[in-house]
Amino acid sequence: MRDVYQEQLAGLSDVLAGMCLQVATAMEQATRALLEVDLQVAEQVIAEDLRIDDLRADAEEKAFGLLLLQAPVATDLRVVTSAIHSAGDIERMGDLALHVAQTARRRHPHPVLPAEVTGYFAEMGSTGTALARKAAEVIRTRDVDMASTLEADDDTMDDLHRHIFSVLLAPSWAHGVRPAVDITLLARFYERYADHAVSVARRVVYVVTGRMPGPLAV
Amino acid sequence: MRDVYQEQLAGLSDVLAGMCLQVATAMEQATRALLEVDLQVAEQVIAEDLRIDDLRADAEEKAFGLLLLQAPVATDLRVVTSAIHSAGDIERMGDLALHVAQTARRRHPHPVLPAEVTGYFAEMGSTGTALARKAAEVIRTRDVDMASTLEADDDTMDDLHRHIFSVLLAPSWAHGVRPAVDITLLARFYERYADHAVSVARRVVYVVTGRMPGPLAV
Repeated sequence: MRDVYQEQLAGLSDVLAGMCLQVATAMEQATRALLEVDLQVAEQVIAEDLRIDDLRADAEEKAFGLLLLQAPVATDLRVVTSAIHSAGDIERMGDLALHVAQTARRRHPHPVLPAEVTGYFAEMGSTGTALARKAAEVIRTRDVDMASTLEADDDTMDDLHRHIFSVLLAPSWAHGVRPAVDITLLARFYERYADHAVSVARRVVYVVTGRMPGPLAV
Repeated sequence: MRDVYQEQLAGLSDVLAGMCLQVATAMEQATRALLEVDLQVAEQVIAEDLRIDDLRADAEEKAFGLLLLQAPVATDLRVVTSAIHSAGDIERMGDLALHVAQTARRRHPHPVLPAEVTGYFAEMGSTGTALARKAAEVIRTRDVDMASTLEADDDTMDDLHRHIFSVLLAPSWAHGVRPAVDITLLARFYERYADHAVSVARRVVYVVTGRMPGPLAV
């Protein structure tokens, strides 16, 4: 049987993995709100964001309590300091999903996206959602090989991001400045969401190996 | 005379305050590169960013060492956990200054900004730079009243951000989509830079009072 201390450490990882699943759902729904011009789904994402913020506060409190009462060392200390970082990253992922939902709400009942970019955003949504679910799995299993696969998914996101800009900046773009501004910011939200998921996975690699893999692309 | 432990804690705050001053200079120079279409200054900001990343690694290492060897409690523990958060925020401010410089470099020898928005960016640059210098001072002095003044500066930044969008989206905008895309991202970089400075100041309030002030606007 694990002792209280080990339970607390495991509990901290559980909160983080749960947060990842929540922000995955948030991004999935926010993308649906965007693509299907669905105000109700947008509102749901916006309302749920407060729960993600609460989970972050919970994770930070648990981390602080462990440092205070258990003074962890070695791997355990890395678990706790990494949790502090990752809670911030995952909360930010929730904020970015929130921004997508807010954009859908702001333009409702009009769609934000002209038809020629909806396919890219559908892919960005599924790539982002998959990244967040994988990050949850990496936190749960501490699987370093799986952690490294997030880098490839992030490359997919970066490619999508670049494609979207090439559409916006092509001479054939016929929708003017306002949709271009919306799309520029939306694409950035998805790209940053993916960066944070990679960052979470890298922290797990650090927990396991004691070394941080390469710096986040900025 | 202070003991080694107190020296280490003070050293951690010194690194953070130094980082704030560096990212203030980075944003000041990046803004200059942008406004004066100065490639050399842009290159300098880009080269210096590695030093900011190193300082973050240094801050994290110092924080980790303190947790491991000193097992701090109470205010001291808050100093260390807040330092972990703030090092991340300040490094991100450096990345955002880097993005501004990279944008200036990407368009060189052409200016990124049409004349009607240069004034706004000059103001965003000085507001951002002032926020970072104030954050350094707040870290050094733990002055809670000064910390709260960063919120007002952040409101100024948000106002500038909104004004820029109103220029981009006005019927009189004659520069097409590409500058609008660049300006949308640039304005976002300044706005996020300010958010991170506020976040650093709030962590100092938490160190002093044990309570986090209101959540960051997202």
